[in-house]
Amino acid sequence: MKKSLLALALMGAFSSAAFAQSSVVIYGTLDAGITKTTNSANTAILEGGRDNSKLGFRGQEDLGNGLKALFHLEIRYEVDTGNIERSTRPLFQGQSRVGLQGGFGTIRLGRALTALQETTTQFDPWSGMPNVAGFQTDMMVAGYRAAVPGSGSDPLGVSSTSGNRFANALWYNSPVVEGFQLNLNVGSKENNGLTSAIVGRGTAAAPQYPVGARAEAYPYSISATYMAPGNTPQYAVYVGSERNSTEVKWHSVGAYFRPMPALKLMATYGKQDLSHIRAINDTMKAWVLGANYTVGTGLIRAGYGQRDTDGEIKTKELSVGYEHNISPRTYIYLDLSQKKVPVATAPASMDMNQNHYALGIHHNF
Amino acid sequence: MKKSLLALALMGAFSSAAFAQSSVVIYGTLDAGITKTTNSANTAILEGGRDNSKLGFRGQEDLGNGLKALFHLEIRYEVDTGNIERSTRPLFQGQSRVGLQGGFGTIRLGRALTALQETTTQFDPWSGMPNVAGFQTDMMVAGYRAAVPGSGSDPLGVSSTSGNRFANALWYNSPVVEGFQLNLNVGSKENNGLTSAIVGRGTAAAPQYPVGARAEAYPYSISATYMAPGNTPQYAVYVGSERNSTEVKWHSVGAYFRPMPALKLMATYGKQDLSHIRAINDTMKAWVLGANYTVGTGLIRAGYGQRDTDGEIKTKELSVGYEHNISPRTYIYLDLSQKKVPVATAPASMDMNQNHYALGIHHNF
Amino acid sequence: MKKSLLALALMGAFSSAAFAQSSVVIYGTLDAGITKTTNSANTAILEGGRDNSKLGFRGQEDLGNGLKALFHLEIRYEVDTGNIERSTRPLFQGQSRVGLQGGFGTIRLGRALTALQETTTQFDPWSGMPNVAGFQTDMMVAGYRAAVPGSGSDPLGVSSTSGNRFANALWYNSPVVEGFQLNLNVGSKENNGLTSAIVGRGTAAAPQYPVGARAEAYPYSISATYMAPGNTPQYAVYVGSERNSTEVKWHSVGAYFRPMPALKLMATYGKQDLSHIRAINDTMKAWVLGANYTVGTGLIRAGYGQRDTDGEIKTKELSVGYEHNISPRTYIYLDLSQKKVPVATAPASMDMNQNHYALGIHHNF
Repeated sequence: MKKSLLALALMGAFSSAAFAQSSVVIYGTLDAGITKTTNSANTAILEGGRDNSKLGFRGQEDLGNGLKALFHLEIRYEVDTGNIERSTRPLFQGQSRVGLQGGFGTIRLGRALTALQETTTQFDPWSGMPNVAGFQTDMMVAGYRAAVPGSGSDPLGVSSTSGNRFANALWYNSPVVEGFQLNLNVGSKENNGLTSAIVGRGTAAAPQYPVGARAEAYPYSISATYMAPGNTPQYAVYVGSERNSTEVKWHSVGAYFRPMPALKLMATYGKQDLSHIRAINDTMKAWVLGANYTVGTGLIRAGYGQRDTDGEIKTKELSVGYEHNISPRTYIYLDLSQKKVPVATAPASMDMNQNHYALGIHHNF
Repeated sequence: MKKSLLALALMGAFSSAAFAQSSVVIYGTLDAGITKTTNSANTAILEGGRDNSKLGFRGQEDLGNGLKALFHLEIRYEVDTGNIERSTRPLFQGQSRVGLQGGFGTIRLGRALTALQETTTQFDPWSGMPNVAGFQTDMMVAGYRAAVPGSGSDPLGVSSTSGNRFANALWYNSPVVEGFQLNLNVGSKENNGLTSAIVGRGTAAAPQYPVGARAEAYPYSISATYMAPGNTPQYAVYVGSERNSTEVKWHSVGAYFRPMPALKLMATYGKQDLSHIRAINDTMKAWVLGANYTVGTGLIRAGYGQRDTDGEIKTKELSVGYEHNISPRTYIYLDLSQKKVPVATAPASMDMNQNHYALGIHHNF
Repeated sequence: MKKSLLALALMGAFSSAAFAQSSVVIYGTLDAGITKTTNSANTAILEGGRDNSKLGFRGQEDLGNGLKALFHLEIRYEVDTGNIERSTRPLFQGQSRVGLQGGFGTIRLGRALTALQETTTQFDPWSGMPNVAGFQTDMMVAGYRAAVPGSGSDPLGVSSTSGNRFANALWYNSPVVEGFQLNLNVGSKENNGLTSAIVGRGTAAAPQYPVGARAEAYPYSISATYMAPGNTPQYAVYVGSERNSTEVKWHSVGAYFRPMPALKLMATYGKQDLSHIRAINDTMKAWVLGANYTVGTGLIRAGYGQRDTDGEIKTKELSVGYEHNISPRTYIYLDLSQKKVPVATAPASMDMNQNHYALGIHHNF
């Protein structure tokens, strides 16, 4: 290694080179599969089937006395087309954050998953991977997501920019004390590019949040966690709350428990409060039960959840998945899921069943 | 190396770091030159003159028993402006693929050059580099390319996304057995963003492929190759066929031969069948002869080809080029080319001669 | 290191891998802060506060006899949103250049800061960092920038693409001889995407530079520098001139002096000549005085400048900043600035005072 450091030092103008090479970690994920979702607008057959694909750069600098500077930049892309995620999302959609870590905890600035949504990924039977079979992006959040105007983490942003991230935000993670940790996250009042008005409790002529509107209150996201000791904790619990820039709130609580090392049982409950922007039907509730079971080099995932929306019949989802590890960084997976989705304007007999199948390969590097 | 692995292992949350660093290869190409093409809409003077510029990330994981997981992500960009290729193409326009390799061959999923077009690059006197002097993107494919509505590898995609790639596709390369190899490639029926209808055998009011149309048949690309033994084979032949999502077909056959190690002679013949979307003038044929000759640290490239399109006069192209290697990874080049392009609505006397000059530098890293 | 080279060599098709890994340097900057600018359209509160954020790839290849091939690719992005810079700029907005270096100097092709603007960064008390407190992008250039139609380095480009870079250009830096160096830079006549006409001395119906116009003369940028010997030269001077593609000219001269090693005093004077596109008010003049003072691990920056525009009252700016290095690659900063901006259509009493505050973290990797 010395030799190349020397070579780099000789580069003259490139004085930070030697540091750079020792501190940047390049990592990523490619997930490609053959998927099919019935009764869905998504006609893609071959695509990233389960996890989002990533190419990331991260590093840290030791500042002495246990203090560190950290950064993290993560590109998200579609492996089937080579485009950035949804073709329109930010280049570093995964996250772009910089900050400091020390005895006081971790402080970071930038854009990333909200504190609460970062916490809940560990309580989703699909580990927060955003696919139809998983529960994180729809059921676990009690419908709190970009597809519902005014809902989701970034309602004043461009609609396609995802509903579980804060931009222009600050994160604080406390140190872990006797298993307890506190995670705080506050965004700015900045408008992130809202291009169609959110009528809310206003009128079409005078919408509650007009095009380009800014937040009236600071959005925030909080979670508190307790984890039993050990590398594979026997149990963990969390409680958290989030308020977005249209003052819609989402509250969530959950736990996991390992009756034996190979089995992880999970349960979460969430509630979304849309009363700031809706006069009626302003509450959504949801619960999810899940399990992960390790069999040899394989892992079975299973989950069942229900969402109850004021004025609508229930949404129900049942999923099972299997992943077969063919190496430490590569696995083949099969996901099956059935979702009963209410059709708003139709009687219950018209409810739509979506079946989802995915067979793919997941590779980390 | 051990030291930095240790350091990375200490990063805690970054548990895949140690693997990452050992497996990712960063590579690329910058090609910048001074070019001029007469009678052309392209007014650029300084630009990538010969090859496309790339920044790529690739790696593999050994799974034991000769099995490997592979990935490949390649950014394409314009070195003269800093933009991604054509400003509008996918970020990883070069390719984004993931797959497995073993005794059975190689299976990959994602987006890349079609199997046949990957094969033919070795039979183009310009090695498939997509410039005016080269033959791969127009003559060798017998006019099968994005500029002709309904033609090219991705006619149901955004028009600027290039005509020699499949997205949402699967590749299979057989093992090489006694010099023979089979390459199969099948795409999905997915629509890739077609924004203007392809009238084809329909009418303007009822086009054969309306905006957003999906393929009726699975697009595919096949090639079979035979190569003589050795690192610099004395000869090789291929035969291949491709059908795109509008069922336009392109058939191609070719060979190269080395009468002495420094000289490589090439010949290809191609035919495009547009009968599925055209009532008349549905056939294009083309042949190309080429040579590469090594002189000291230099390489001379030469080629001549003709394309014969039903109902039009012939297109003829003559090119010569020289590259002077100033190091293992860097060369300076000069390309000269003359192309006689038919003007569809004019008599033969009006045919347009395009002269192309390029002087540039090509650097690999 | 040998081991991994071997492993890479075994990758077969990936023959350039071994070279690649030894030659690519990954580097970057993340700058995130809490900023506020009064009387400004910019409502962002948390954002890159001082410097632009970067992720770069660069390398060089030794060609023997002191000759080198060089490349440089630099992504610019917004750390607060994860987007590329301004969401619309080229991917490699920082620069994309490739070239050769030897006894004759350095020749590079591509896109980057103009030769003169690359020189002046060393004479700006904010080191060319493009923020409200700094002087480089507005005062030092005497108002020569993208916001003034027809002005700036790329007036025939997309308006958001920045006003201090040439695309499609060539750079030549002479060797340093007895402290003297010459930097030449010439662009092409290419149109870079001008989408709204520049009326200039024409009329709205017949603008001087219509949409898509090309340059009539080659744009260029020149600077000559003299630097006293040593790693921390006691003084340096420069003189330079630039002409853009609408033939607007900017002339600049400056010097710095270190009365003691910890103190660097700077002075620059610039003049913009818009006479080719304006009948009246065609001259802007500006001067800036600055100081950098090192205190322990901290650095104090201070500057004052005035810009005098024909027919307008003067713009005045006063800035102070402090950065506290908490490590070789990380610092915390605080910037304060006051700018008196003339309101074109109002009496002097209506002049607008902009106050700017920024508190942030700056991390290099």
